Amino acid sequence: MKLATYKDASRDGQLVVVSRDLSTAHYATGIANRLQQVLDDWRFMAPQLQDLYELLNSGKARHAFAFDPARCMAPLPRAYQWVSGPAYASHIERLRSLPAADLPAGLYAEPLLRQGSSDGFIGPRDDVVLASEAGGIDFEAQLAVITGDVLMGASPEQALAGIRLLMLGSDICLRSLGVLQGRPMTAFGPVAVTPDEAGDAWRQGRLGLGLQTTWNGRKVGLCDAGEGMTFHFGQLLSHLCKTRPVSAGSIVGAGPVSHADWRQGYNCIAEKRAVETADTGQPTTRFMQFGDTLRIEVKGKNGQSLFGAIEQEITPPA
Amino acid sequence: MKLATYKDASRDGQLVVVSRDLSTAHYATGIANRLQQVLDDWRFMAPQLQDLYELLNSGKARHAFAFDPARCMAPLPRAYQWVSGPAYASHIERLRSLPAADLPAGLYAEPLLRQGSSDGFIGPRDDVVLASEAGGIDFEAQLAVITGDVLMGASPEQALAGIRLLMLGSDICLRSLGVLQGRPMTAFGPVAVTPDEAGDAWRQGRLGLGLQTTWNGRKVGLCDAGEGMTFHFGQLLSHLCKTRPVSAGSIVGAGPVSHADWRQGYNCIAEKRAVETADTGQPTTRFMQFGDTLRIEVKGKNGQSLFGAIEQEITPPA
Repeated sequence: MKLATYKDASRDGQLVVVSRDLSTAHYATGIANRLQQVLDDWRFMAPQLQDLYELLNSGKARHAFAFDPARCMAPLPRAYQWVSGPAYASHIERLRSLPAADLPAGLYAEPLLRQGSSDGFIGPRDDVVLASEAGGIDFEAQLAVITGDVLMGASPEQALAGIRLLMLGSDICLRSLGVLQGRPMTAFGPVAVTPDEAGDAWRQGRLGLGLQTTWNGRKVGLCDAGEGMTFHFGQLLSHLCKTRPVSAGSIVGAGPVSHADWRQGYNCIAEKRAVETADTGQPTTRFMQFGDTLRIEVKGKNGQSLFGAIEQEITPPA
Repeated sequence: MKLATYKDASRDGQLVVVSRDLSTAHYATGIANRLQQVLDDWRFMAPQLQDLYELLNSGKARHAFAFDPARCMAPLPRAYQWVSGPAYASHIERLRSLPAADLPAGLYAEPLLRQGSSDGFIGPRDDVVLASEAGGIDFEAQLAVITGDVLMGASPEQALAGIRLLMLGSDICLRSLGVLQGRPMTAFGPVAVTPDEAGDAWRQGRLGLGLQTTWNGRKVGLCDAGEGMTFHFGQLLSHLCKTRPVSAGSIVGAGPVSHADWRQGYNCIAEKRAVETADTGQPTTRFMQFGDTLRIEVKGKNGQSLFGAIEQEITPPA
């Protein structure tokens, strides 16, 4: 099923069920108002939402309305945990080829994950409001999962079973500001989907579909999101819960989608600049500026948008 | 006022108001069930809770009951953000005096903060359940604040005004496992208190009271929490919201309380071991083991416990 959260001027919004083709939606009122409630009590609530989803897809839901991504918050507008890291080795290899950086020991043995701020994600069509253009404004177009409860010490296979929903993410970075101030905000795509929505493209914690990134109207990346993924989502989640349990509603992101085949393009500017630097000694592609736009989307094998598109503009404060 | 969260088998518990002397409590039902609700709507709800608090202190609350810290969850059992870092320069100086480490540039210019996991804090009397004794089990006895909404770019003074509640914290560390797996869980003291509860001991973002740490029944630290604090809470919070707003219910911790005067003892083992290493070439104090106990408390100028005590035991999984 596909779930979204509509803006209603509250911090957590209103949960809606969205049809498979993203054409219609229906409030989940009567089942749950907020997505976190569903995650807290998944086995009880998910089947009820699934029933509504099937009714909606069949065109028989009485109070269905046209789905509008512009009215969406992030599917989980704030979360109790947001962890991400580069799960694609080609991303790290390219970045580390910059002068004065060495490949870290254990790069292929363990994922690099870090906690991020989850007190307020932005919606898929919200502006990215930044105080300044300084710092090197970059994006990281990526996939993420929302988890249920996962036990301490869960294996990658056990962790896979704890994945509830898949999402599309856009993590905004300020490259020169470090990991705290340099990660000001993250947007997620209009709908979160259960893994079955991806059909056989979801396999063993990897999503074998193309993620397309368009910057200022120009396609810069169309990259298979599964092939280059060194650590799959079960491995990322297992790594996170090695020393402690992980609670329902945690979000784990895999970092910018990347591929060893450079012809598939880039999903973060830093990678492009690193390749330019390796080739010519200096980067020629600039970072983002106010007024720049970004569009990120994943299409299923049927050509339909899986999550809906993230469409953002970088803006100064009003 | 003083607020706590009682266990009720739910993820968020039940909000209770606790008397100033920590002897009695009263459910906040009718005002709010969960602390996050109060933080989301502070100006409306806090005065109502304050009224109940005053009634409770006067002995006139009809349904008051004896307060039992053993029934407490963390005041905010899960949070949308948990950021902490060493705000006490003497802590960093001691740790960095270890061989092969250098003092970072800008150590006194900007605080070092990192995001931590906030999907499930443990209560003040809950066991610290760890899979293994390996990795160097350590504690960080510290103060923390819970914030309201703070705007992007807020100055330290503006950020100070965004502090809603003070708490006592115990951040468990596994020293050799890095910042993600090495920070498995955090406990908070029984009650969160509004800054006015500290009287004139709360001054400009610093709490001038002694924090006492007792390890296996032996007092190892009794340290003024204000004197050695290089960056006060307004500065920490201002640093966090430099590039983005911070939302209500975020928790900011100041890292282990430390003091230039070593006779005030230590509030994390790593500091003690670093001093030993500097003195004799090797550490002689071991890290914690299963069965070890920890007690952390802050007393007000009147001798009464401000937050109640954290009392923990390190245990293997059941």
